[in-house]
Amino acid sequence: MAASALSPPEVPMELHAHNRDRLVRALRDHLAASSRPTRGFVLLQGGEEQTRYCTDHAELFSKFFSNVPYAFRLHVADVASGKSFLFVPRLPADYAVWLGEIKPLSFFKERYMVDLVFYVDELVVVLHDHSDEPGKPLLFLLYGLNTDSNNFSKPAAIEEINKFDTDLSTLHPILTECRVIKSKMELDLIQYANDVSSEAHIEVMRRIRSGMKEYQLESIFLHHIYMYGGCRHCSYTCICATGENSAVLHYGHAAAPNDRVNGKFTKDQIVIYNAVLAAHNAVLQSMRPGVCWIDMHRLAEKTILESLKNEGIVIGDIDKMMERRLGAVFMPHGLGHFLGIDTHDPGGYAQGLERPKEPGLKALRTIRELKESMVITVEPGCYFIDAVLVPALEDAVTSKFLNKKEIEKYKKFGGVRIESDVVVTADGCKNLTNCPRETWEIEAVMAGAPWPLDHARIKSQNGSSGA
Amino acid sequence: MAASALSPPEVPMELHAHNRDRLVRALRDHLAASSRPTRGFVLLQGGEEQTRYCTDHAELFSKFFSNVPYAFRLHVADVASGKSFLFVPRLPADYAVWLGEIKPLSFFKERYMVDLVFYVDELVVVLHDHSDEPGKPLLFLLYGLNTDSNNFSKPAAIEEINKFDTDLSTLHPILTECRVIKSKMELDLIQYANDVSSEAHIEVMRRIRSGMKEYQLESIFLHHIYMYGGCRHCSYTCICATGENSAVLHYGHAAAPNDRVNGKFTKDQIVIYNAVLAAHNAVLQSMRPGVCWIDMHRLAEKTILESLKNEGIVIGDIDKMMERRLGAVFMPHGLGHFLGIDTHDPGGYAQGLERPKEPGLKALRTIRELKESMVITVEPGCYFIDAVLVPALEDAVTSKFLNKKEIEKYKKFGGVRIESDVVVTADGCKNLTNCPRETWEIEAVMAGAPWPLDHARIKSQNGSSGA
Repeated sequence: MAASALSPPEVPMELHAHNRDRLVRALRDHLAASSRPTRGFVLLQGGEEQTRYCTDHAELFSKFFSNVPYAFRLHVADVASGKSFLFVPRLPADYAVWLGEIKPLSFFKERYMVDLVFYVDELVVVLHDHSDEPGKPLLFLLYGLNTDSNNFSKPAAIEEINKFDTDLSTLHPILTECRVIKSKMELDLIQYANDVSSEAHIEVMRRIRSGMKEYQLESIFLHHIYMYGGCRHCSYTCICATGENSAVLHYGHAAAPNDRVNGKFTKDQIVIYNAVLAAHNAVLQSMRPGVCWIDMHRLAEKTILESLKNEGIVIGDIDKMMERRLGAVFMPHGLGHFLGIDTHDPGGYAQGLERPKEPGLKALRTIRELKESMVITVEPGCYFIDAVLVPALEDAVTSKFLNKKEIEKYKKFGGVRIESDVVVTADGCKNLTNCPRETWEIEAVMAGAPWPLDHARIKSQNGSSGA
Repeated sequence: MAASALSPPEVPMELHAHNRDRLVRALRDHLAASSRPTRGFVLLQGGEEQTRYCTDHAELFSKFFSNVPYAFRLHVADVASGKSFLFVPRLPADYAVWLGEIKPLSFFKERYMVDLVFYVDELVVVLHDHSDEPGKPLLFLLYGLNTDSNNFSKPAAIEEINKFDTDLSTLHPILTECRVIKSKMELDLIQYANDVSSEAHIEVMRRIRSGMKEYQLESIFLHHIYMYGGCRHCSYTCICATGENSAVLHYGHAAAPNDRVNGKFTKDQIVIYNAVLAAHNAVLQSMRPGVCWIDMHRLAEKTILESLKNEGIVIGDIDKMMERRLGAVFMPHGLGHFLGIDTHDPGGYAQGLERPKEPGLKALRTIRELKESMVITVEPGCYFIDAVLVPALEDAVTSKFLNKKEIEKYKKFGGVRIESDVVVTADGCKNLTNCPRETWEIEAVMAGAPWPLDHARIKSQNGSSGA
């Protein structure tokens, strides 16, 4: 097996404690700003195991998905004091036989860095005891829209909810905004996830052989991140597409599994690949606090169109193409999305921002102004998709910009997407991803060269080919 | 990488067509036997993608879980004619961009070997058109208890259900019973799954090194079955436990992930391992049609107790121990369960069979009489679990049989479970699993010997140690 430079880190419990503190402080600030009293409890619920259909097959789940890093089991924070309470299930004695030792409450207090630990069935009594207010204690529950999925998060489900006053609207935008700006500890973990993924991509490049199936590349990737990176979960189902399959943006799902591979760029592939790489690089050079993401998307589109014009694939004035949204014909998806606990991290349309209606722009998962410590993917692409190109060629306006004869050559081409995961810094951005990007770098790694490349040596071997 | 003898087969669509036929014929027989008219339609619903919490993260799912091999999307069978109808969703044009080509109806007719294909939104009209009866057509829906999970299967959810008469009770026991007896094509696939798993176990044995983590062994296993066996899914979350973790019967779930390994049996390990192996072998020698599974469970318990008595771990009369359910102290779980599309395949308590109440026996997932073409796991175990042993040592009756001093030696031992997947044949049974079983075979494979072993050669090298 390949050597690995990876060493799986512990997820520090301080990260969770710090997030809970951030949340309570943000909530207090919000209450003060709207002249509301500093009272009540934040109630968050941790992940729960799901079974498949009606069977007893428990799907493997992680405690670390979605909002869960803010809460294990039932987590409560006292808004006024900031004190944190953990409520754990009272387990039946049988649990020890089937699922392992039953830990005492003191274990959870120490392990999860909370102030107090009780059993779930004590929730009502404990919160009434700790409330200084007359009447029912107030619970802030997490309920709101995820703008990527259009699903609503479910508020914590507790019995005897009628013993409390509840607030369903305040918490969600505040917690979502906490997730948009990453802490130093979170950035360290995201960097680690990028290191693992980058190394696994390189391992796949090295082991690709003609005749392999796409799913075998997925297997190599998943094995590398688990075996050497300790990652039991992958952030999303691998999109591992060769040839024309690469024009299917979310290829790899159950109805189109990854199942087909060569190690050299053709001339056409270099053209399209370099168009996308130029867009990727232009965006990275422009990202900084204060820049609007929708402008970065337009910059990527424009850069791709300029390359396509140089090749004679599109014809005419680039600004007019941009007005007519021609970029969306070749890149129907958004430039990138927030990244964190979730692949599509929330908060893209916070603060009442409206989703654009125009082709391409409407697919953007955020149009926000960049701020320091946001983490966002930069993933421009260029595809030849019949379902998009045929209508564009038939349309009186867009067809004028398209060189039908040249486009015909790319009919079975598929597409190219290049993704980097990027953190916004005080005066620019930092690319967390570390993979070969230039075509000659990719070919060298696929032929067995170590990464990072010894550039001087390869250039002397290849003459000026990669310069 | 290790070589592999595997060659992933296509799942034959005939298997599904044959299952649908079996189901309709069994339903017709049932209706005739209860003097009911041969009319109506069987309506089954295929698997649906689920998202994680409120996010747009789609969990990877397979169309082949649970009852799904009997149905893709909405599947209907006309009880009288046996004709099969498939109803597929009408996909939006956008689908082609994100998820791949939209196939015509004719594609599904051929691919899924059905008689007629329509869109889901045509269901009401089509079934009314194809019904010869006056009044509303009758739908047989799948609704019933899974006795392993205590969950109920959900009947197909369709709009305008009020346009039909519905029968919620007839179909479930009939379909469940169809699943208990495997067809030749199903047995071939189960044999393949066993070949893949057996080879992957051997690969893990070969690659274990001191200092590895348990999760790395899980990763080797998962990679082998996917890379060489084409298996994207594993039937259950790996239970990969070393040392005392092996006393946790379902170790490996989210709260106790697989994370710690050596390649030689100690003397104590040989004692307990061989006790379990003797039970495993005794059961395989006794299995045949007509034998009751609860008797196989008792045989396994008795065989283990006899070995423990030989070692002085238990003391006294074996028959008295059996009366006092002492077997359950060392094997608190059932001997095995039906196996098929699900890990815990249903039908274990069909026909009104009552689950036993006694220790050990109450954990049995079936107590049925064996029939030809049932597939069942044989997985005896022997564990030293504090949560079970401490009460047994304190109990006036059971403590008399226990040699406290000997048991103390095994306090941190953990446990041993040996599993084979077995099909009942006309005059006995066939073991579908092909792994090293004898301690000396396991040690030889872990030391790098090929499997199957060249027994003659190894014996000549080791003298009589493995005889």
